[in-house]
Amino acid sequence: MSNSDRVETLRWVGDVDGHLVLIDQTLLPVEFQEIDCRSIEQVWEAIKQLRVRGAPAIGIAAAYGVCVGIQGASDDSTLFAQLNKAAEYLATSRPTAVNLFWALDRMKAKAATLQGQTVASIRTTLLEEARAIHDEDRAMCHAIGRHGAALLEDGQGVLTHCNAGGLATAEYGTALSVFFTAQDEGKNLRVFVDETRPLLQGARLTAWELSRRNIDATLICDSMAAQVMREGRVQAVITGADRIAANGDSANKIGTYSIAVLARAHGIPFYIAAPSSTFDLAIASGTEIPIEERASEEITHGFGRQTAPTGIKVYNPAFDVTPAEYIKAIITERGLIDPVSASQIQQVLAHP
Amino acid sequence: MSNSDRVETLRWVGDVDGHLVLIDQTLLPVEFQEIDCRSIEQVWEAIKQLRVRGAPAIGIAAAYGVCVGIQGASDDSTLFAQLNKAAEYLATSRPTAVNLFWALDRMKAKAATLQGQTVASIRTTLLEEARAIHDEDRAMCHAIGRHGAALLEDGQGVLTHCNAGGLATAEYGTALSVFFTAQDEGKNLRVFVDETRPLLQGARLTAWELSRRNIDATLICDSMAAQVMREGRVQAVITGADRIAANGDSANKIGTYSIAVLARAHGIPFYIAAPSSTFDLAIASGTEIPIEERASEEITHGFGRQTAPTGIKVYNPAFDVTPAEYIKAIITERGLIDPVSASQIQQVLAHP
Repeated sequence: MSNSDRVETLRWVGDVDGHLVLIDQTLLPVEFQEIDCRSIEQVWEAIKQLRVRGAPAIGIAAAYGVCVGIQGASDDSTLFAQLNKAAEYLATSRPTAVNLFWALDRMKAKAATLQGQTVASIRTTLLEEARAIHDEDRAMCHAIGRHGAALLEDGQGVLTHCNAGGLATAEYGTALSVFFTAQDEGKNLRVFVDETRPLLQGARLTAWELSRRNIDATLICDSMAAQVMREGRVQAVITGADRIAANGDSANKIGTYSIAVLARAHGIPFYIAAPSSTFDLAIASGTEIPIEERASEEITHGFGRQTAPTGIKVYNPAFDVTPAEYIKAIITERGLIDPVSASQIQQVLAHP
Repeated sequence: MSNSDRVETLRWVGDVDGHLVLIDQTLLPVEFQEIDCRSIEQVWEAIKQLRVRGAPAIGIAAAYGVCVGIQGASDDSTLFAQLNKAAEYLATSRPTAVNLFWALDRMKAKAATLQGQTVASIRTTLLEEARAIHDEDRAMCHAIGRHGAALLEDGQGVLTHCNAGGLATAEYGTALSVFFTAQDEGKNLRVFVDETRPLLQGARLTAWELSRRNIDATLICDSMAAQVMREGRVQAVITGADRIAANGDSANKIGTYSIAVLARAHGIPFYIAAPSSTFDLAIASGTEIPIEERASEEITHGFGRQTAPTGIKVYNPAFDVTPAEYIKAIITERGLIDPVSASQIQQVLAHP
């Protein structure tokens, strides 16, 4: 892979006096541009405006944001004041992003263990902590990729939905990590990408990531997946997940359940790739997962143009839940969950 | 139904010296505007620019176009010369529209029986012939509506895909005629409308037709149909068809096959509503129906804005074929074809 193919969602440049660089995802897929975040305000704005998105990537950006926020502190007490202020401020950028709070809490907890050290030492250790968060996410993506790639053979066609890609994580992503790792292993895949209405994450982000890495990618409308399956063009389906219940029922972008049903009807295995952090063992099944409904304008005014009659009623569920019985296996960084059952989930998650 | 709710795709205003009025469908769903066609050039332009679309509606427009074309003829030979010129000219407006040629041929055949009559008499009879084409299509739509409405109960939810509506026909359409007729019979339906990517005929046209007639209509993305079915919101699916093979395999807008498979998985009956003219008994099964592929820009630049990376590969089949086994019944103007089999098709089509 040449350097120009590399998709680094975000990276830290330099030492403790360095800065955060991230891909401005709002310009994709038409324009590729990285932006420098040298102030805490720039980090906040990048998260707020979705220039960086996806739970893991937001967490990493926030951790590095703390490192930017404590730059210029002359003594211990100034540094801790700046740190608390930075964490408090960054927390307001995307108040519903769980990973944002998780990363900020982790940075604060680490800082709390450093009381009494020199400013230079604290700053170094906190940058190391942010890098650790980054590295752990990268390692998680690669582990998912390895476990998933073992399921695929050279020359196969695969279908994916939405964007479970590197842009949402440190690198490689979850479902897309399987394709990237298979490529690294010398397997050539043909990937079909659902455009994923209403927000077109498949067309905008997944298609971009795959073509950037020279993977054979073909964009289709969501309604074409069944035809592509019927024509024998895909031998597996892999998507990400947003939340997985204790029994394996999996919430993901709307349309995922549709593909799972279609895959079963065509005898094609349907896989989910997701880190262990996606499991919510406190909920027994998918029936307990609330389905968020989003604004009707996402459908009626898709891309700045009105494409439906004024005042038409709209149903716009953001997610659906695929029952465990439709999922052949769940690919986690700790290994495959196969078959997908409550006991198998507990067993795999118990062994890091 | 108040006059303002009425969707008259096209109508002739006045006597032989009158003119054709049609809804400019290119302005829908944002703007409702009718245009007057007082010259043959205006009729040609309306067909060419898709201001009027749908096989039956194009045929009717062409027939009235002939009536416009022969206005001003002072004698028999001038009239026949104008008629031939008009038919030849109109045939170039949409060279792939079979109904266009069918209607022009019918007008010419009728004219051929009128040789030697007065100009006034020929013009009157040809306007009657155009009106007959119009009326026959209207009657066909209403017959389909009656047969289909008998399948639905008050309070049910139904799903449709693309636009098999009045805008493509004289009035009422095919699949939508079932909903309109059910409404006329006092049944309240809740209709879910697939937006129908890539060209959004569902969002633009079907949603408009239903809301114009005050039918409870809810717009969804194509990928949401499975979720809507799973939530128990629909008890039947009805779509149109473009071409039906001798065994009942039915070609229709891409995405129809997907819904048929999803409907079966959820135990929901899937119906097709189509006139007997849709059957092509010369082809034994759907495998003989070629699938047209359309321009990739329909997917990558769907909303006037680029939403996919430059150069991405695209697969854009315009149609799919739903195997007969997925179709509970085909609703024709001659009655229900149920079960959908070659022998049942022959039997129903044999009795006008």
